[in-house]
Amino acid sequence: MAVSCNLQTSLSHISIFPSTTKRQPIFRCRASLPTIVTTEPDLVFTSVKSFAPATVANLGPGFDFLGAAVDGLGDFVSLRVDSSVRPGHVSISEISGSSKLSPNPFFNCAGIAAIATMKMLNIRSVGLSLKLEKGLPLGSGLGSSAASAAAAAVAVNELFGGILGADQLVLAGLESEAKVSGYHADNIGPAIMGGFVLIKSYQPLELKPLIFPENKQLFFVLVSPEFEAPTKKMRAALPTEIGMLHHVWNCSQAGALVASVLEGDVEGLGKALSSDKIVEPKRAPLIPGMEGVKKAAIAAGAFGCTISGAGPTAVAVTDDEERGKVIGDAMVKAFMKEGNLKSVAMVKRLDRVGARLIDSVPR
Amino acid sequence: MAVSCNLQTSLSHISIFPSTTKRQPIFRCRASLPTIVTTEPDLVFTSVKSFAPATVANLGPGFDFLGAAVDGLGDFVSLRVDSSVRPGHVSISEISGSSKLSPNPFFNCAGIAAIATMKMLNIRSVGLSLKLEKGLPLGSGLGSSAASAAAAAVAVNELFGGILGADQLVLAGLESEAKVSGYHADNIGPAIMGGFVLIKSYQPLELKPLIFPENKQLFFVLVSPEFEAPTKKMRAALPTEIGMLHHVWNCSQAGALVASVLEGDVEGLGKALSSDKIVEPKRAPLIPGMEGVKKAAIAAGAFGCTISGAGPTAVAVTDDEERGKVIGDAMVKAFMKEGNLKSVAMVKRLDRVGARLIDSVPR
Repeated sequence: MAVSCNLQTSLSHISIFPSTTKRQPIFRCRASLPTIVTTEPDLVFTSVKSFAPATVANLGPGFDFLGAAVDGLGDFVSLRVDSSVRPGHVSISEISGSSKLSPNPFFNCAGIAAIATMKMLNIRSVGLSLKLEKGLPLGSGLGSSAASAAAAAVAVNELFGGILGADQLVLAGLESEAKVSGYHADNIGPAIMGGFVLIKSYQPLELKPLIFPENKQLFFVLVSPEFEAPTKKMRAALPTEIGMLHHVWNCSQAGALVASVLEGDVEGLGKALSSDKIVEPKRAPLIPGMEGVKKAAIAAGAFGCTISGAGPTAVAVTDDEERGKVIGDAMVKAFMKEGNLKSVAMVKRLDRVGARLIDSVPR
Repeated sequence: MAVSCNLQTSLSHISIFPSTTKRQPIFRCRASLPTIVTTEPDLVFTSVKSFAPATVANLGPGFDFLGAAVDGLGDFVSLRVDSSVRPGHVSISEISGSSKLSPNPFFNCAGIAAIATMKMLNIRSVGLSLKLEKGLPLGSGLGSSAASAAAAAVAVNELFGGILGADQLVLAGLESEAKVSGYHADNIGPAIMGGFVLIKSYQPLELKPLIFPENKQLFFVLVSPEFEAPTKKMRAALPTEIGMLHHVWNCSQAGALVASVLEGDVEGLGKALSSDKIVEPKRAPLIPGMEGVKKAAIAAGAFGCTISGAGPTAVAVTDDEERGKVIGDAMVKAFMKEGNLKSVAMVKRLDRVGARLIDSVPR
């Protein structure tokens, strides 16, 4: 069953109000995101801590509409009621794990998503203080911005009793994604919902969870090189027009990819993942060594390999953790040999849960 | 699991040998389709009768790679050993249900597929006589040519003990499809295998059956107007280049379509079926009334509606047979009102079996 929610989603009317009590910038949400809750809910906790997983999106022929969550890798958000923060406002008190992020909630993924979620919940009586722990590197192709946004949205929601559904939290997270990487839900969807998520439509937002069978094993081999993917070039590399034969091919592989996920057919999934004739062939040459890394992954036993997100991380799939390590080693060697790039490999399971509460202090 | 078979599939070397014993043209297959069986198999029956179902292909965003078989509508082939036919040859003795088809097996779908199957089985010792009963109108968009080819391929195979697998029979049928409508397996695949079939690739041929759950109901409402779809125009209407946004949209809908089939979600299936932004918008205006027929189908409760094959038949889906009849009536009225075309409606279940033996006489 698809999750559906028909909402306007522009935060263009957010206004900035300087804090009178603290030096950290504080913002009040006046977004056009509708208020879902008419009566302001009671606090259930005084503080919470949440986690949201990394995500792999684009996934070959799943470009721009399919993503999956990765277990044991992601961002943390701690959120507490803070009487020094103006009611209805949010303040970012601390960011660890990255020195590049703004503490201004209006320019911070976690901040934007927290503001959007507060708006949906109609929070006007308390102010919140947010601490972000980045577990994910920025710009790696692993859904770093989505993980921060997902963790923040879930933290705000849980603080007030978890009233909003996953679809609404995705909408809140999309406000953040729209600011940093475009209005695409293929990272924020699985970051919040876990597992594989297919983005059916945006107007209205329809998300289709694709359940990978519980009794099957799926491992992502993620190899991140020390290389900053040239975002502008990666976008410019996308073709604007696609020939009919390639279109039909990619559509059929997208169908096969979806079927393989639902059937728990990791071999089929890998094969489909590897089969993109439209985006990957244009982008791979922009990441030094990527084509050789893909060949090395498959030669080492991976069922398939492609670029994660817009790169530079390469993602391969296997159904065996030990084989995953061998594949990762081969990919690291290939990045060095073919691209002269140092890289690190991780073997991670599919995350089936998505963003969640991991700690809380009751009122 | 995908069915896979790596074979060359050109029948370009078929040679014509005039019969010396009968007036009907008779042909011997010298195709480059490989002989699968090295030792000629024994006859199991002296005669058989087979049935192969109609198929709906193209299916909105499933254009050119997804088709489904339709129960209770199709073609019949009767095949018998005939000592008056030169050994290793096939003769078409009778065609009923259509006056437009050639009795020359080289120019007849059933004949071409029978020849290809005989070649694969290495049949050299007996001659065969084939009778074709067309249950499907030609050029209606219901896979008429594929049904004839599928019935013939299965009949030949069963006569000799059913040695060939479904994938090999699809290859035999593809020889026929290549002659009449292009090298596409989205009709012949489901005509032989039943159910929904996704065509993953041609080199090698890989077919993925998509199992619609046994406990769910799916009905096709098929409405065929008295109108000859202008094949040339229908092909010329296909865009050669597709914008990235439409490509991503159709890919995502193809994924949703596949997921809906596997989950037995007829509502999702209908919605995805209806969502094509690439082919249907170009072709529908060439079939008088089609756009109104689609609207009428959905207004009458159909979950979705599109063009079947290259038309002119319109196909809608529902999970309720009685509602199917109401939908069919509404579509017939709309074809008359909007397109000034008479039409007939049928409500048919999904065929889950595909081409099969329905009668046989043992040796």
